[in-house]
Amino acid sequence: MRAVDVIARKRDGGTLSRDEIQAFVRAVTDGAWPEYQISALLMAIVLRGMTAEETADLTEAMVHSGVKVDLSHLPGLKIDKHSTGGVGDKTSLILAPLAAACGVVVPMMSGRALGHTGGTLDKLESIPGFRTGLLLGEFQRMLAEVGCSMIGQTAEIAPADKTLYALRDVTATVESIPLITASIMSKKIAEGIDALVLDVKAGRGAFMKTPETARALAESLVAVGNRAGVRTEALLTTMDAPLGCDVGNALEVIESIETLKGRGPRDLEDLSVRLAARMVVLAGEADSARAETMVRAAIGSGAGLEIFRKIIAWQGGDPRVVDDYGLLPTASRRHAVAASSPGYVADIDAMGIARAAMRLGAGRDRVEDAIDPAVGVRLRVSVGDQVIAGQPLAELHYNDSGRLFEAAALAGGAFTISDLAVTAAPRIFAEVV
Amino acid sequence: MRAVDVIARKRDGGTLSRDEIQAFVRAVTDGAWPEYQISALLMAIVLRGMTAEETADLTEAMVHSGVKVDLSHLPGLKIDKHSTGGVGDKTSLILAPLAAACGVVVPMMSGRALGHTGGTLDKLESIPGFRTGLLLGEFQRMLAEVGCSMIGQTAEIAPADKTLYALRDVTATVESIPLITASIMSKKIAEGIDALVLDVKAGRGAFMKTPETARALAESLVAVGNRAGVRTEALLTTMDAPLGCDVGNALEVIESIETLKGRGPRDLEDLSVRLAARMVVLAGEADSARAETMVRAAIGSGAGLEIFRKIIAWQGGDPRVVDDYGLLPTASRRHAVAASSPGYVADIDAMGIARAAMRLGAGRDRVEDAIDPAVGVRLRVSVGDQVIAGQPLAELHYNDSGRLFEAAALAGGAFTISDLAVTAAPRIFAEVV
Repeated sequence: MRAVDVIARKRDGGTLSRDEIQAFVRAVTDGAWPEYQISALLMAIVLRGMTAEETADLTEAMVHSGVKVDLSHLPGLKIDKHSTGGVGDKTSLILAPLAAACGVVVPMMSGRALGHTGGTLDKLESIPGFRTGLLLGEFQRMLAEVGCSMIGQTAEIAPADKTLYALRDVTATVESIPLITASIMSKKIAEGIDALVLDVKAGRGAFMKTPETARALAESLVAVGNRAGVRTEALLTTMDAPLGCDVGNALEVIESIETLKGRGPRDLEDLSVRLAARMVVLAGEADSARAETMVRAAIGSGAGLEIFRKIIAWQGGDPRVVDDYGLLPTASRRHAVAASSPGYVADIDAMGIARAAMRLGAGRDRVEDAIDPAVGVRLRVSVGDQVIAGQPLAELHYNDSGRLFEAAALAGGAFTISDLAVTAAPRIFAEVV
Repeated sequence: MRAVDVIARKRDGGTLSRDEIQAFVRAVTDGAWPEYQISALLMAIVLRGMTAEETADLTEAMVHSGVKVDLSHLPGLKIDKHSTGGVGDKTSLILAPLAAACGVVVPMMSGRALGHTGGTLDKLESIPGFRTGLLLGEFQRMLAEVGCSMIGQTAEIAPADKTLYALRDVTATVESIPLITASIMSKKIAEGIDALVLDVKAGRGAFMKTPETARALAESLVAVGNRAGVRTEALLTTMDAPLGCDVGNALEVIESIETLKGRGPRDLEDLSVRLAARMVVLAGEADSARAETMVRAAIGSGAGLEIFRKIIAWQGGDPRVVDDYGLLPTASRRHAVAASSPGYVADIDAMGIARAAMRLGAGRDRVEDAIDPAVGVRLRVSVGDQVIAGQPLAELHYNDSGRLFEAAALAGGAFTISDLAVTAAPRIFAEVV
């Protein structure tokens, strides 16, 4: 099989065989295809697409480029959650302990994605001492003891994805539902889970800008998961305004703990509970109606918070942060962004807030960039709130004055104040099961 | 300007600016873009296309990746001919001397393309001593003295094309009218010519399989040439059966000399005369009606043959080959392929004949492959001829018996004998001016 023939078939809109796809992924892993052939095929896939079967074959081949974790010796169903990413999305930190408190085993592995704000690993690592780089053996032991572990993907997990993603990032071949599906699902399937709940986001602050493309991605992800024997379902959620109030790593840890204490913002709590409840249902611990009650009870009883405390302690972090936020990195200065006119908060552009947080140092442009865990943006109002002129809309937490001016302008520009009363739309707009 | 943004724009079907195209070609030439980005953009161009303006900008940028030869000090109009390539196509060897005999200055530079049979350079180099690697100064002096020179493209001519072509060949990005146009026209424009006659072939034995795609390519080539100030026109010709009777390097030299002596096959003579006549018209030496008479007169008087003799002598070859074909490389053995049944020759598949010649050693698979100048296939019949059972259809000239069996099967399989009388279609089916 010649690489150029495989590329030509996809270029001409043909379907690649399982053998061809396996050969491609093997060649990506062992370097048998030069990068210029890999990128030519990637562009042909972006523009010609892949069938559901090709996407499943690609995902499977990527799983087999590394090890598939074996968690079958642990009792109970192992269930993870994955979000396609959004601004202020810290649901993982909330729902993983809650689901574990309800009897679900949650083996959560996260990637260190680029983005305007940090990923789950960056948020967790803002807790002093917290280690996300556990060995697979530690991970398995912790799952047995705590019921939940939150670590970074190890090098053994779908190594082909790492190579492909690095190349896609610099060749404008990221935007492809089959490639995104294989990238996400290969890593999740390799975790050795029984079921997966997806949060596929649509909107300005999400990778998928429209409900239609988000639904297409969700359907592709669910189909590939189920085909691989991992029971998969997806919630489709909006990502136009930030989720919750806080954007920034340590700030989001605080907001997550507050939510586990029952004091979080409504939209964040509701989405976290709903996602955790789906995990409880998939684990067979309760039916749909009972599951949400169980999860909310785990907030009320503090059982979820207890699990989070154990996770922090087990992974080397200081569990006292749960009670004393002063132990988390704290920015030295604050700046309030105020409303210039009275009215109703009609819109908070997630991308504007994300760019402001990024400018303050909360995210990274390149893999090697350092982030400042303390900085970020705290929203003081939500969509629908009535405000008076001069009322603070957001508070910027910053360390470097040189970055403030631009960040404040970005944050201020994210708010739209209207004369008419506005109601925030619900976050969850569809399910794909 | 980031490479990934340029790639993304073309991926999304956008139009690249002149600046972006120039930056791309500069980056190809100086290595500023890694090959994986170049190949991703090439695939996006193959699948999204380019506007006429983008194609012209790409061609111009490729011209400026090297030197543009200055022939303005030579009197008269400088006119070249280019063929998109076909089996048995030796018209260059015939029309260049004929056009020169009619007062046209013919600065012919050819590439050493891969193919089932050799290119113009390989054919000329089968003449003992013939050098195609002249320096630019020698080339210019010869044009002044002889009116024609036939050399290989020098390294100074459109070097970006060399890099791009090597990458296109291994990434399945050859099949693109804009990329083919820029590759052909950049090299021709860089020759410093005033006008260009194209022979764009369509059919099984051609790169373009259908009249429609050949016409689209011809229109693109003509538009880009005229835009760059090189008066360009194209003949569209069929390439289903080989052109003339001989396929193989020295065999094609002999057939070319025979044609210059007025003894060539009708289809080859007619096409060569027609192409040369267009060059004479473009040079302003005669109007359309007179030009063909002038070219035929240059055959009848032997003036074309005299120029060919001078070309051979000037470029280091032995000019006595014109009178004594025994001085050319000659294969040691012959094998006749005979008709198994009586009837009419309904079809001679050019690709079958080309593969037979290739198998005997007349062409090359890879740039580094050596070719055998003596071997090849001589057709003994033409489409439309009536044959009896056992009559020789073709004669294989070979040196290596180990290659004969497969070559004979390929050549035999190329003929279709029919019970019904058949008339050969004309070669030229359209013009693009």
